[in-house]
Amino acid sequence: MTEINENPLMDHFLHPFLNPKSICVFGANNEFLSTMGAMQLRYIIFGGFPRNQIFPIHLRLEEIQGLKAYKSVLDLPETPELAFIILRPDIVPQVLEECGQKGIKHVIITSGGFREIGNINLYKKIVQIANNYNIRFIGPNCLGVYNAWYRFPELEDACFNTMWIYATPEKGNISIIGQSGTVASHIFWICREMGVKIGKSISIGNEDNIDTVDFLEYFREDPQTNVIGIYIEEIKRGKEFIELAKKVVPEKPIIAIYAGGTEAASRSIMGHTGSIAGDDKIFESVFKDTGIISTISIKDWMYYLRTFSTGIFPNGNRLGIITDSGGCGAMMAKASEKLGLNVPEFSEELRSKLKKYVPDVANIDNPLDLTFQFNQYNLYIKIPKLMINSGEVDGIILYAVFGFEEVLDIIKESGGKTYEEFDISNDMMKRIYLKPIQRLVRKKKVPILYIGPQGYNNPWVREFIKANLPIFDLWDMPVKCFAVLAKYSKYCKKLSTDLRQ
Amino acid sequence: MTEINENPLMDHFLHPFLNPKSICVFGANNEFLSTMGAMQLRYIIFGGFPRNQIFPIHLRLEEIQGLKAYKSVLDLPETPELAFIILRPDIVPQVLEECGQKGIKHVIITSGGFREIGNINLYKKIVQIANNYNIRFIGPNCLGVYNAWYRFPELEDACFNTMWIYATPEKGNISIIGQSGTVASHIFWICREMGVKIGKSISIGNEDNIDTVDFLEYFREDPQTNVIGIYIEEIKRGKEFIELAKKVVPEKPIIAIYAGGTEAASRSIMGHTGSIAGDDKIFESVFKDTGIISTISIKDWMYYLRTFSTGIFPNGNRLGIITDSGGCGAMMAKASEKLGLNVPEFSEELRSKLKKYVPDVANIDNPLDLTFQFNQYNLYIKIPKLMINSGEVDGIILYAVFGFEEVLDIIKESGGKTYEEFDISNDMMKRIYLKPIQRLVRKKKVPILYIGPQGYNNPWVREFIKANLPIFDLWDMPVKCFAVLAKYSKYCKKLSTDLRQ
Repeated sequence: MTEINENPLMDHFLHPFLNPKSICVFGANNEFLSTMGAMQLRYIIFGGFPRNQIFPIHLRLEEIQGLKAYKSVLDLPETPELAFIILRPDIVPQVLEECGQKGIKHVIITSGGFREIGNINLYKKIVQIANNYNIRFIGPNCLGVYNAWYRFPELEDACFNTMWIYATPEKGNISIIGQSGTVASHIFWICREMGVKIGKSISIGNEDNIDTVDFLEYFREDPQTNVIGIYIEEIKRGKEFIELAKKVVPEKPIIAIYAGGTEAASRSIMGHTGSIAGDDKIFESVFKDTGIISTISIKDWMYYLRTFSTGIFPNGNRLGIITDSGGCGAMMAKASEKLGLNVPEFSEELRSKLKKYVPDVANIDNPLDLTFQFNQYNLYIKIPKLMINSGEVDGIILYAVFGFEEVLDIIKESGGKTYEEFDISNDMMKRIYLKPIQRLVRKKKVPILYIGPQGYNNPWVREFIKANLPIFDLWDMPVKCFAVLAKYSKYCKKLSTDLRQ
Repeated sequence: MTEINENPLMDHFLHPFLNPKSICVFGANNEFLSTMGAMQLRYIIFGGFPRNQIFPIHLRLEEIQGLKAYKSVLDLPETPELAFIILRPDIVPQVLEECGQKGIKHVIITSGGFREIGNINLYKKIVQIANNYNIRFIGPNCLGVYNAWYRFPELEDACFNTMWIYATPEKGNISIIGQSGTVASHIFWICREMGVKIGKSISIGNEDNIDTVDFLEYFREDPQTNVIGIYIEEIKRGKEFIELAKKVVPEKPIIAIYAGGTEAASRSIMGHTGSIAGDDKIFESVFKDTGIISTISIKDWMYYLRTFSTGIFPNGNRLGIITDSGGCGAMMAKASEKLGLNVPEFSEELRSKLKKYVPDVANIDNPLDLTFQFNQYNLYIKIPKLMINSGEVDGIILYAVFGFEEVLDIIKESGGKTYEEFDISNDMMKRIYLKPIQRLVRKKKVPILYIGPQGYNNPWVREFIKANLPIFDLWDMPVKCFAVLAKYSKYCKKLSTDLRQ
């Protein structure tokens, strides 16, 4: 992934939406927590945008959040690259007209109240005005954009964030296009916790000018994007979408949610973006044809995005399961079979090799139940290595990632002696247990999915997240995630076979 | 729920397993982190068990973890109420024999290596010895028990915990019976985070003497248990189980995982508890007949337990959805329909009443999308109240639970003024926004399921968990949880109708 100054998309018409040099903001004031515009301006400032390049516009206020305000966009000393509008919908056409007069070519219209609630005339007006002035706009009825990759001159760790969400996930190679501001931003808290590393996110709104297809084209070329998440309520340019998706998917996986297709959902969507949503079956067939991975669960979607962002795609659907617990082994084996995965019995050869590292009371099989085992080196290195090198599995799930902070605390509190070998830092554990095996994982394309039941806030678990290793708090999701990885690999393999024929 | 001294189960044969007055421990030493027995003794001590009532038995050591050790159970100055064995399996019969000679009647055998790995002779031996001495035992091949309700004389906030898991969830009315130590204990960390409040948990192991049916009987009578979670790999006393479950379910919901029924799972189970697991379809029909709620997902199971522990069962399957986000509203509406729930259109009357509390740009419908709304009183009180009193819904999902700590911090850091009305303590918010509406919820039996996307560690979200209100980090689970509540209610209603006829 490259920084912005090497970005080949510098001249793309969408580039200034994510990387504006200057911005004017309509609808902000000083009334935090009761005005959406005030909150959104706050986050633009807080993200590190150069203050002298932010121009609030307000009829009465002289100063907004410490910035000089202007009565009209026409009064501005220069033409901002981007205009951001959060006003009552009936005022939007006039303001948009003035933006056109000022020569602004890029506008985000956050305001709701257009065709999604039946205001067809207002909708027609803004489309017409934009056409008159060659304005491209995102929205209306959206939260705008988030770009963790933009580098402001003054702040290294900055982001461009027009959404009102103050939590930002760690920067990564996942980009989002959402016909829902919630899906594009409210998930940020949990993304931060789970390690879903989002680089860019677009709340695309009613798509009356710029649509999902436009951003899909953009992200296809974007060197900072490796995985694309989309939330769909309708696709306006269906044919273009399908043709484009077919090209994108083999290069960059697309994970989609389609929220329409039921009666109550359609009613909800009509009032949300004003779209008419089609039957589920149509979308199912689109997803199948294009190789798009889809789900209707927000958690699945987030986990799938995270899984694909590691970029390791297995060669098949054979799963090896390592666990210190028979129960979760049995549950994972059952879930695997239900999802069409193969949990093969190991060969005699592999069994005899594994025997060395497994307690006598344990059965040597797949799932491999280690029972009580605190030899961390065997768990993290020796056993997975044997499985990978055997060629008998295409992926591994490893249950039993435990950090020792709490347990050492308790032992110390109770006056017990601790073994020094366990009283080592996470840094050292990371060096010993995580890095060497990952070289093999990448070389052989056998992903290891880890489970650490202490949860995402445990310090040792956070080391996995920092290192971009797929770690899970419990054992439902790793099976599902391996299943979609295997599905994607199969699709890509079939595609390349078809092409060769 | 009552404290232990009023417990009507004082004389039940299982009572001393959860509430032993004294305990002897075989297989503990001072080698923490490499010996399971050492860890387990550590947690018994750490839980607050009176030190002078713990008797470690060891051939060579004089002192174990600060406690006087004895060479043999026969040397003990008194007969302990419970014996706890974590030894190599081949030594177990001899030790069990000595326990019998000493007059011990209750034994937990943690050791693995019996019929689950084909050691049928060893298995037969321990069953025979127990019969000879009228010993009842849990296990072998288990982690023992956890009881947060036991009150040790010396420590108010104590628990009896033989499992090696050092995290303990908040105490509550959920009891677990698991043919898996993992399911009975490794979930504790996430339970603590999510607010799944477990009072008692049994890792039941191979069930060679005491089985799931025994504990189901016990928990049926237990005043500290309102919801029962079971993890099943096989049911040995099938007929008894079905008859008992039919009686228990209308009094106390049972949430089950059945881990068998597929090839790889059966292989895994055979090596785990030595059981032969039956076809999925058999269990599906058992669950249907008995009204047991089942799942094969560990997260679902935990969420269902938590949901049922609130004890509010709706009268039907009509769901009202309140959200500040069209996208998550649409997704919930879709998920609801797929699960057979009804998201009804609101009547004209209800719409006109709601209009007062909803911004102009919003559509008044179900899902009700409030768009941007920071009037917390409307959100938490006025709008749900109107919905409940309308009689048009049987349950409500409320998206948009936000705490303001982070946002106020950012506003303050940025030098902005804050509205004092928002700068209130969680305590005050709790008093205003949570308690009054809960009286109505309980009276009308219309549960409200909350969603707070800031996650379970957010202080305001934790207030919900403290208050036993069902709060979720994202929007997949509340729909699923309401669906199982509605399913349970329907089962109970049908049952009472059948009985009247």
